[in-house]
Amino acid sequence: MLAPIAWRTPPEHYGPWEQVASTLTEGLVRQGVEVTLFATADSLTSAHLDSVAPHGYAEDPTMDGRVWEALHMARAMERSHEFDLVHSHLDWLPLALEAQWRAPLVTTVHGFSGPAILPAYERAGSALVSISDADRAPSLHYAATIGHGLDTDAFPAGPGGDVLLSFGRIHPDKGTADAIDIAERAGRRLLIAGIVQDEDYFDELVRPRIDDDRVVYLGAVGAAERPGVLGAAAMLLHPIHFDEPFGLAVIESMLCGTPVLAYRRGAMPEVVDDGVTGLLVDPHDGIAQAAATVAKAAALDRTLVRRRARERFSVERMVESYLDLYRDLRDAAHRRAPGE
Amino acid sequence: MLAPIAWRTPPEHYGPWEQVASTLTEGLVRQGVEVTLFATADSLTSAHLDSVAPHGYAEDPTMDGRVWEALHMARAMERSHEFDLVHSHLDWLPLALEAQWRAPLVTTVHGFSGPAILPAYERAGSALVSISDADRAPSLHYAATIGHGLDTDAFPAGPGGDVLLSFGRIHPDKGTADAIDIAERAGRRLLIAGIVQDEDYFDELVRPRIDDDRVVYLGAVGAAERPGVLGAAAMLLHPIHFDEPFGLAVIESMLCGTPVLAYRRGAMPEVVDDGVTGLLVDPHDGIAQAAATVAKAAALDRTLVRRRARERFSVERMVESYLDLYRDLRDAAHRRAPGE
Repeated sequence: MLAPIAWRTPPEHYGPWEQVASTLTEGLVRQGVEVTLFATADSLTSAHLDSVAPHGYAEDPTMDGRVWEALHMARAMERSHEFDLVHSHLDWLPLALEAQWRAPLVTTVHGFSGPAILPAYERAGSALVSISDADRAPSLHYAATIGHGLDTDAFPAGPGGDVLLSFGRIHPDKGTADAIDIAERAGRRLLIAGIVQDEDYFDELVRPRIDDDRVVYLGAVGAAERPGVLGAAAMLLHPIHFDEPFGLAVIESMLCGTPVLAYRRGAMPEVVDDGVTGLLVDPHDGIAQAAATVAKAAALDRTLVRRRARERFSVERMVESYLDLYRDLRDAAHRRAPGE
Repeated sequence: MLAPIAWRTPPEHYGPWEQVASTLTEGLVRQGVEVTLFATADSLTSAHLDSVAPHGYAEDPTMDGRVWEALHMARAMERSHEFDLVHSHLDWLPLALEAQWRAPLVTTVHGFSGPAILPAYERAGSALVSISDADRAPSLHYAATIGHGLDTDAFPAGPGGDVLLSFGRIHPDKGTADAIDIAERAGRRLLIAGIVQDEDYFDELVRPRIDDDRVVYLGAVGAAERPGVLGAAAMLLHPIHFDEPFGLAVIESMLCGTPVLAYRRGAMPEVVDDGVTGLLVDPHDGIAQAAATVAKAAALDRTLVRRRARERFSVERMVESYLDLYRDLRDAAHRRAPGE
């Protein structure tokens, strides 16, 4: 299991790719699969851990992420003959060097930074996994779509409440400023949680509106406090301004029983069961639409939200889907080389 | 021979790494060495050419340089078992993946973008070649210093003239604005040639002083016109603001008989024979010092400048130095594996 090394695996705060690599690794180990996790040296895992990078490069300005990522990948590559399969969460670099791997490669495509990286994917023989159908690039062939799962027991049912919640990195993509407008129009208080990823956006459009009463900024919320914050909200506002490939915070919220009010774009129609676990509104004139929908979203049955989310987004379901894919690849390899 | 792919090999205008890869390749072929050049598909060579990238990524905003560089390197890596030796001009990526090469690796270190890339070099077993002693990183072990050479016949003796010349990418590092000040104080006309690499610097400190009389900007000067421009100048002004690792324009100028007036830093003391092929001045208060030295530099004997430069910077001398290194590595490999 080749995790990214921007952050520790699992991450302490932000780090969705590392989070998925961790959740899958631990789930596979529980199923009796022997896994070696390539991640930062400070990572926590019940699998075998192998590391080159001492800690995440996103936490250390003296580390060049490109250099450490290459060294990290090279380490896994050198050992790849030891494994039945290599599962990469590392973006395009392992694909560009695919002929060097000594085991079949599975790549979970967590997101595309842009069309310019497609040449690495188009040439690759790796089995590609999309994390939603919405995130598929039309020019690529995928082996499967496997949505993320989470340790559902880590997200207990929350009591709900009156306050609305914006949860995720603070960036124009995530629409934090839209969430403030929606809450204001709906006459509700708003809590904001997440790392500041775009300082200018935060300074211009978010910080001036924080008054510690109607709009409260909690800062980054770590793994331990996350379920409490999510579970105590009336709903998660998710007015995204990009085609989000999945949305881990969305499923975390639903697992706690907190419904989601999101703009209908990216993977939201796949992740949110419209009318059951949340409500989707058109992004055009989204603020007015969303504000008008707040009362209806608050009336969704939290027990049903939670039940549906636990059915769809458990780690066991994700692990089983990946195991099916691994078996298919093994069987296909055996058919190609029957003598081995 | 693994050339960079920012530009064609050889480059049409700027591209010193590609230029050196080209010069060395053609020189080796003339010595009877069989060379496969990995470079952009539009490259020109008498060696075997192999390519992934259609053209240089620096000329095409739709190409992601990191992706194409990885694909390009991967191609050479896949074929590396065919070669006695792989000579890389590609910066740190081939070093980070060194265990994947199936032939001994020689790396010419054309320059460090910063200390953060050192981890890739420190772990590498590649024979490292510095292009000047000044450019050596103290923490690394080098196999040799081999300065660049050029096809000396491509740079015929020029007549000289009254005008001063600033030649190179327009960027604070290269001190284009200093050159304007030096020429003005010395009461001389100045020609500026080179690509604009830093638009802000050009717009603020260079463009306002271009008057098409005392200060003339020629734009980028291609390979064909270069010797004419260099040879018709009284001297090359090279008031650098960084520790330049070599300085190809400096040797091109000297080969044409045109002396160099440079700041004493980086590789300049190694490349310029102070008092013979040029004059070096202290970078502190460099403009005044340099302006006061213009007359003395103009009085240097152009025939001696040219003679010394041809002795020191011929392609034959560079090729012989690299062949010596290749032979040493082959002999060392044979000593380690006498049975093969």
